[in-house]
Amino acid sequence: MISVVILGAGNVATHLFKALQNSKEVIVKQWYSRNLNHISSFKNNVNITDDLKQLDEADVYILAVSDDAVAEVSSQLPFDNRLVVHTSGSVNIHDLDKKHKRGVFYPLQSFSKDAKIDFENVPICIETIEKPCYHTLKAIAISLGSPTKKVNSSQRGVLHLAAVFVNNFTNQLYRVAHEITESEGAEFDLLKPLILETALKVQDHSPYMAQTGPAKRNDKKTIKNHLKLLSNEHHKDIYKLLTESIQITHGRKKL
Amino acid sequence: MISVVILGAGNVATHLFKALQNSKEVIVKQWYSRNLNHISSFKNNVNITDDLKQLDEADVYILAVSDDAVAEVSSQLPFDNRLVVHTSGSVNIHDLDKKHKRGVFYPLQSFSKDAKIDFENVPICIETIEKPCYHTLKAIAISLGSPTKKVNSSQRGVLHLAAVFVNNFTNQLYRVAHEITESEGAEFDLLKPLILETALKVQDHSPYMAQTGPAKRNDKKTIKNHLKLLSNEHHKDIYKLLTESIQITHGRKKL
Repeated sequence: MISVVILGAGNVATHLFKALQNSKEVIVKQWYSRNLNHISSFKNNVNITDDLKQLDEADVYILAVSDDAVAEVSSQLPFDNRLVVHTSGSVNIHDLDKKHKRGVFYPLQSFSKDAKIDFENVPICIETIEKPCYHTLKAIAISLGSPTKKVNSSQRGVLHLAAVFVNNFTNQLYRVAHEITESEGAEFDLLKPLILETALKVQDHSPYMAQTGPAKRNDKKTIKNHLKLLSNEHHKDIYKLLTESIQITHGRKKL
Repeated sequence: MISVVILGAGNVATHLFKALQNSKEVIVKQWYSRNLNHISSFKNNVNITDDLKQLDEADVYILAVSDDAVAEVSSQLPFDNRLVVHTSGSVNIHDLDKKHKRGVFYPLQSFSKDAKIDFENVPICIETIEKPCYHTLKAIAISLGSPTKKVNSSQRGVLHLAAVFVNNFTNQLYRVAHEITESEGAEFDLLKPLILETALKVQDHSPYMAQTGPAKRNDKKTIKNHLKLLSNEHHKDIYKLLTESIQITHGRKKL
């Protein structure tokens, strides 16, 4: 049995806590938040605290706190030589106080408060300095049902950056489509099957092979008509830049 | 029984033909392509021709040809007063020769040669000038198992434009993520569950509500680090523009 203390009260902390409740190999001994109100609804399920000095002894301390807080909280922990990991995509493993055995347990997925998460669909990127720590973190991930990957801090930073493109930026393109359709009396909902199909297609095909459309075909007439239809200058800029990007990728245009 | 002639040999024509093979309410009487080789592999399943003068009589003629060919092919048809429809997102219904009963049967989905399409996930946008024609086209869509929507030419143009954002541009963001990860020794495959989750989330949530990440949080430190990580100037421009777009949407920045 691996004993764990979770620190933090955000989406990652909450989803992790809930998922680990079902684990037979991992027990959450304690949950810390600097504001007890954020986790008080779980007080019947787990020992909760807002005092770092009251932390229980455990095999792993999971710092699911904001990026900026990782270094500080790790240095405030009133013990040393125990395995302390953070869950951030962009924080270096060495930002954890070196008095600890250090590690990273980065779930590469988007967590929201209300959306359910199946950890089978959450790849866990693991980094440790010592090998036994790696096996401990891998065992936790396996117990969640998650695939795992050994990823160093520099690769993790790149994955986090790429995640911004495929998640935040993609979602913003959905938002732009939402604005365009709704402002012209068309239904955004009609686009939902296409949105899903686009994401499904790259599960089995490279994005390069999956590309279609006027930019790739260099269909100047359609591109011109689309630019005319866009009244918002910012949407026009996005259209131009991504059209150009597709044309560079597909050799329609020289850099 | 509705009888149909399909004209064209591209992805839409081929997927439509295959799907209609299973229909009990619709029969494809004939398939036309100006190049018989493109459809000759189907000659045991359907009467094929490359001669517009040899077209059979049918209830509906579906012009699944390129946008530029719609007007010309429709005017070359050696008959009048029959229902002739095109399948394009961006061609006006009035581009069809007015000697015909005219209509549009626009499948709002991305079709590729090798990927299977389930027409349950293909909303059909229907436009006609006369009401009986509308019912004929709706019956064909229902027989395919597709949802349908009455959409006029102007709304259809907007949907087609929005489709470029959620399909072509989104796919290009996947491509950029692919370039970023592979060039830095990280695995693009780790992003696939996130890509799918992002598309699944907007099935039930508005893109506005679904947004997360450094741009929305105005996390300047992470944004700066990401821009530093991007070596390709074009990728940097995309990052900046879409970050700005998110910040405008979420009130982080004034226009």
